[in-house]
Amino acid sequence: MVKSIVVSTARLPKTLVEKLKIYAEYFYLDETLNKEEILSNAEVLITWGQDFDYKEIRKMKKLKAIQTLSAGVDHVPFKEIPDSVLLYSNAGAYSEQCGEFAWALILALSKGLNNIVLERQKYLEGIYSKPRRINNSKILIFGTGGIGKTVARIGKGFKTYNVGVNRSGNKPEFFNEVLSSEVAFERLSDFDIVVIALPLNKYTYKLFKYEQLVKLKDESILVNVGRGDIVDEESLYKVLKERPSIRYGSDVWWKYDDKEAFETKTGIHKLPNAIFTPHISGVSGKGFIEESMSEAIENVIRIITNNNPRNLVDTNDYI
Amino acid sequence: MVKSIVVSTARLPKTLVEKLKIYAEYFYLDETLNKEEILSNAEVLITWGQDFDYKEIRKMKKLKAIQTLSAGVDHVPFKEIPDSVLLYSNAGAYSEQCGEFAWALILALSKGLNNIVLERQKYLEGIYSKPRRINNSKILIFGTGGIGKTVARIGKGFKTYNVGVNRSGNKPEFFNEVLSSEVAFERLSDFDIVVIALPLNKYTYKLFKYEQLVKLKDESILVNVGRGDIVDEESLYKVLKERPSIRYGSDVWWKYDDKEAFETKTGIHKLPNAIFTPHISGVSGKGFIEESMSEAIENVIRIITNNNPRNLVDTNDYI
Repeated sequence: MVKSIVVSTARLPKTLVEKLKIYAEYFYLDETLNKEEILSNAEVLITWGQDFDYKEIRKMKKLKAIQTLSAGVDHVPFKEIPDSVLLYSNAGAYSEQCGEFAWALILALSKGLNNIVLERQKYLEGIYSKPRRINNSKILIFGTGGIGKTVARIGKGFKTYNVGVNRSGNKPEFFNEVLSSEVAFERLSDFDIVVIALPLNKYTYKLFKYEQLVKLKDESILVNVGRGDIVDEESLYKVLKERPSIRYGSDVWWKYDDKEAFETKTGIHKLPNAIFTPHISGVSGKGFIEESMSEAIENVIRIITNNNPRNLVDTNDYI
Repeated sequence: MVKSIVVSTARLPKTLVEKLKIYAEYFYLDETLNKEEILSNAEVLITWGQDFDYKEIRKMKKLKAIQTLSAGVDHVPFKEIPDSVLLYSNAGAYSEQCGEFAWALILALSKGLNNIVLERQKYLEGIYSKPRRINNSKILIFGTGGIGKTVARIGKGFKTYNVGVNRSGNKPEFFNEVLSSEVAFERLSDFDIVVIALPLNKYTYKLFKYEQLVKLKDESILVNVGRGDIVDEESLYKVLKERPSIRYGSDVWWKYDDKEAFETKTGIHKLPNAIFTPHISGVSGKGFIEESMSEAIENVIRIITNNNPRNLVDTNDYI
């Protein structure tokens, strides 16, 4: 049997290459002398996305599938991909770390750790530091995929009441209720904590505008571990300035010129009621890259062997 | 029937006063005109401790019990208290908030939120910021009382392996194992996270000296929500300077001249691998004072009615 040809734009760890080679002829693109030939014969492409010029896809006449190493696929230029090529994301591979990170932001903001002052009374009374309690709080989680589920599970340790937001209406474990986003926005003022764990696509782009954000409860916390552009920057800036008791934590940033900038037009990341980190939530702990790549490679093997591959992207969500 | 006389050095909320008045004659000491007379007749004293001159106890000939509003009783001058007077603490009344706060410190330190830099690579590689993963980590919790139990319960949301340290050998819910402190110190290098949730008494004073601290694992996190003096300041300072990958978080401080100073002799609180907050962990969220006072008042009612009062302090632990 002729093995499928798989190319990767990222260097994979040796153990994963060996695993893959049982099922495929594997090439790491950067080290391939005959790049043009390999591209023209490759059936599966593994890529981070940012390390690949998608215009090359025109040359890949035998390409059947793309497997991203990233969880999100919002960076993919969908117009460049022929209809015959299926796109698989690596959704779920970073869920545990991202979910933990969402809680790190929630707790830091709840307890005022971004505005520590050593005068006790000032700490306790300061608008930006005043500690709050998590126990028994109501948390609204936009997105009930891997990250959302992890956020909900961790919340149960704190005895939170978890409400999920999704399109399917399915209620995964650790959620008390699930709502549509329309109903969720109507009830936004009920929640102490709101977490955004959604992918960025045409439905979620600027889903949170002034009209929605203004409904946030006083002293509530909004955390974003999805994508920056799910929230409208100017609207959020306005709300955080107008209502300093609302606190925002984000590991994700707005894209300017198609690139996530660790800088903001409004200066929102410097507000005292905000914490911003430079998109590092998925990258926590030793061995993380191997583990998340491993998830993608397992899926590539499922693709090659026609064994129910996961995370097929519905391109209609993006175009 | 003659009601017991109860005095409080702290102003109690109206609802609690009303509750108490069903069982006792109640006086708020500061507002009492005939202070000397009340003291000489009082059977129960409710106090924070810091707001009371314990020398007054000599005048309190009918005193049977003291109920502290604080969880810890390390501030009490035990020599001033006659053997006939029983001391009850308010242990447990702050457990939920303190346990949450321990996790706020653990997560902030794990994810480097105290050393955020916006250059992504610097953040990921920085000795003081490099993010770590909580999931599957091993956590050693000194003290399996209210705070320890809360820390263990919250840990389960993160899928931690929880090992408790206590004298009784009892294994409460959410703990995987329980050890004596001798065995725990022998195995200290096994743990990713170590939490101190002990009271300060003659057994725990400077329990963590250089000899113990030096066994901490590389890249481990030590969090103290017990009392500062459970750890020897100079030893800890030395370890944190020598091994910058170890991170320390503390809401509690060393006592200088019998007073918790939000300042340190060594300057340890300014180290980049440390977070210090000014003893605010118990004070999170609206209504916290009422709730924790309520626990104490419920116990006073148990004392008066001989109905199994809780948290009797063994003064031998202190003298």
